[in-house]
Amino acid sequence: MSLAQQSRFVSEDARLDAARHSVECMLRDVVDGLHPDLARLCGYHFGWSDADGAPTGDGAGKLLRATLTLMSAGAVSAEPTTAVPGAVAVEMIHNFSLLHDDIMDADALRRGRPAAWVVYGTGMATLAGDALIATAFRTLRSMNSRPGLDSADLLLVALHQMIDGQAADLALEQVPVREVDVSHYLRACAKTTALLETATAIGAVLGGARTTTVDALREAGRHLGLSWQIANDVEDIWGDPALTGKPARSDLGRAKKTIPVILALRADNAAAAELAALLDQPEPTGDQVQAQADLIERAGGREQAEVLSGRYLEMALGKLGEADVPEIERDRLIALFRLVAGHHVRPLAGDARASARVV
Amino acid sequence: MSLAQQSRFVSEDARLDAARHSVECMLRDVVDGLHPDLARLCGYHFGWSDADGAPTGDGAGKLLRATLTLMSAGAVSAEPTTAVPGAVAVEMIHNFSLLHDDIMDADALRRGRPAAWVVYGTGMATLAGDALIATAFRTLRSMNSRPGLDSADLLLVALHQMIDGQAADLALEQVPVREVDVSHYLRACAKTTALLETATAIGAVLGGARTTTVDALREAGRHLGLSWQIANDVEDIWGDPALTGKPARSDLGRAKKTIPVILALRADNAAAAELAALLDQPEPTGDQVQAQADLIERAGGREQAEVLSGRYLEMALGKLGEADVPEIERDRLIALFRLVAGHHVRPLAGDARASARVV
Repeated sequence: MSLAQQSRFVSEDARLDAARHSVECMLRDVVDGLHPDLARLCGYHFGWSDADGAPTGDGAGKLLRATLTLMSAGAVSAEPTTAVPGAVAVEMIHNFSLLHDDIMDADALRRGRPAAWVVYGTGMATLAGDALIATAFRTLRSMNSRPGLDSADLLLVALHQMIDGQAADLALEQVPVREVDVSHYLRACAKTTALLETATAIGAVLGGARTTTVDALREAGRHLGLSWQIANDVEDIWGDPALTGKPARSDLGRAKKTIPVILALRADNAAAAELAALLDQPEPTGDQVQAQADLIERAGGREQAEVLSGRYLEMALGKLGEADVPEIERDRLIALFRLVAGHHVRPLAGDARASARVV
Repeated sequence: MSLAQQSRFVSEDARLDAARHSVECMLRDVVDGLHPDLARLCGYHFGWSDADGAPTGDGAGKLLRATLTLMSAGAVSAEPTTAVPGAVAVEMIHNFSLLHDDIMDADALRRGRPAAWVVYGTGMATLAGDALIATAFRTLRSMNSRPGLDSADLLLVALHQMIDGQAADLALEQVPVREVDVSHYLRACAKTTALLETATAIGAVLGGARTTTVDALREAGRHLGLSWQIANDVEDIWGDPALTGKPARSDLGRAKKTIPVILALRADNAAAAELAALLDQPEPTGDQVQAQADLIERAGGREQAEVLSGRYLEMALGKLGEADVPEIERDRLIALFRLVAGHHVRPLAGDARASARVV
């Protein structure tokens, strides 16, 4: 199936569309319940309004994690709407982490616009992130049900893992790139994978699945997360800024220890040695960053990273195969997983670009 | 009873001492479970270690909120140790708010030392605050009991109210001081009162109290919080920096809308008019801040604030009177409440200063 076909397969589901619409409505309701200053900041961050609070007419973006939650509930033969509060809570935790991480990483752009901390200051952006943590758990607790409580517990574990992963990621900044090994990198990946695995798990829990099914879907989500994070690192160097909404090669410019660099430096070839020398420059120019990117590719870092990303995707699909779900629902999840990973592994164009907006 | 007598009455309780020791141990255990970089930052923030991680030999400070929780459990005839996880969770949320608020308010000093964000950067301090939110709720959920769950729900409401209060406090910065009314100020007070009322409520819940008793103790804690916040504002202007651990009159220097200023400006006298003119200076010198303090006092702002603080303390004690608890336990709580408020309302000296460290 092409990306476009996969996208149609995923989106040709009226129940999913209705549930995604409910997620968007509930997100807006929850944000409206915050202090007006926090609601304004969140409205801008989600893309619903501009910096002055005027509506943009846009939705809250891809809602990838919410879609995973809703489709996971659908996969265990529940109505996707059953999982709406879970999908909302997952998106709130995701956006808490975006708000705080952008401050920590000094990322000035988010979704192609100035990040919230740039517009409203770090104090308000920090507080808005805190507010989204609180509202995420309140949304699940207000379900007043055992599955809602179990979901809150899963989300709490995810929050802890995301913070540990972000700490590991910040710690990487202090380690010379030649000393970074893959296991250190993978610990930092928890900042991304923890929520993706929890998004699928919560969907299954709210859908009433058995523990073995929840666990299989959760593991599938974790491997998808690893595939995605690695693909993300590749995309930062070789992706199209018009699609990512972030400046090209921003990771390289800040000497971030992403997986293509780590793998390139482990190669036993001339490009790797040349790259090692080049990475010592404190504030590389645009040309030097371009030279680094070329050397990483020649040393084999890009290909190895893409292979690794692909391998994790296959493992994720393998886990989906183990889950006790109807074949049609599994095929839907497989299409979504491929779309998520494919969306990142290579620059999209034409109809695939349009369909990527669906997830 | 003098402050020293009240302090002795509170501290002459071996069960409370043992429970406070358990709180300190559990706090350290939970922090040790964090990513090493976050554990180091938290160890410094709690006062256990210096900036390099070397032990200071000090404890985690007053643990006022933990003490409220433990004594509240004792008041409903439970062993104070029953409430240890609740006391730990409350202290974690308190310290999350200190870490984040110091960043937002640009407060460079905390407990007489450079604030964590000054030493470790805003990114790590933000992340450590996030981690304390997660660990607070995990501590309560790991009790695996109905009272533990109810406590987590109470703490979640408190977190939401604290964030709303902090947003209201930040919003006050944009309002000309002459337009600030007492109700706006009271909304901002939730940043302090929410956790104090929840500290007492959680102690009662974990102690197995009936709803009416929980509610009475909660209301008592809320009024204590209002008394305390107002006294805090007074202390900022007229307190002894050696005792507060913060620079004198830092609120005035930053034109914060604290209650002595708001009340002084509402007075119909010459000092109030003179004060209004003086407040328009953008960056006041030390002498100008001193002049403001004198005018606030002459306009009656200090006395009115102290009366208001005292009135809220009396309301708090009245609520304690409504709670269905044994007289000896109520007397203990009354002594603690008086100590907390008294510690703030006037500079302590001699034996009262020494005993203030007990809470």
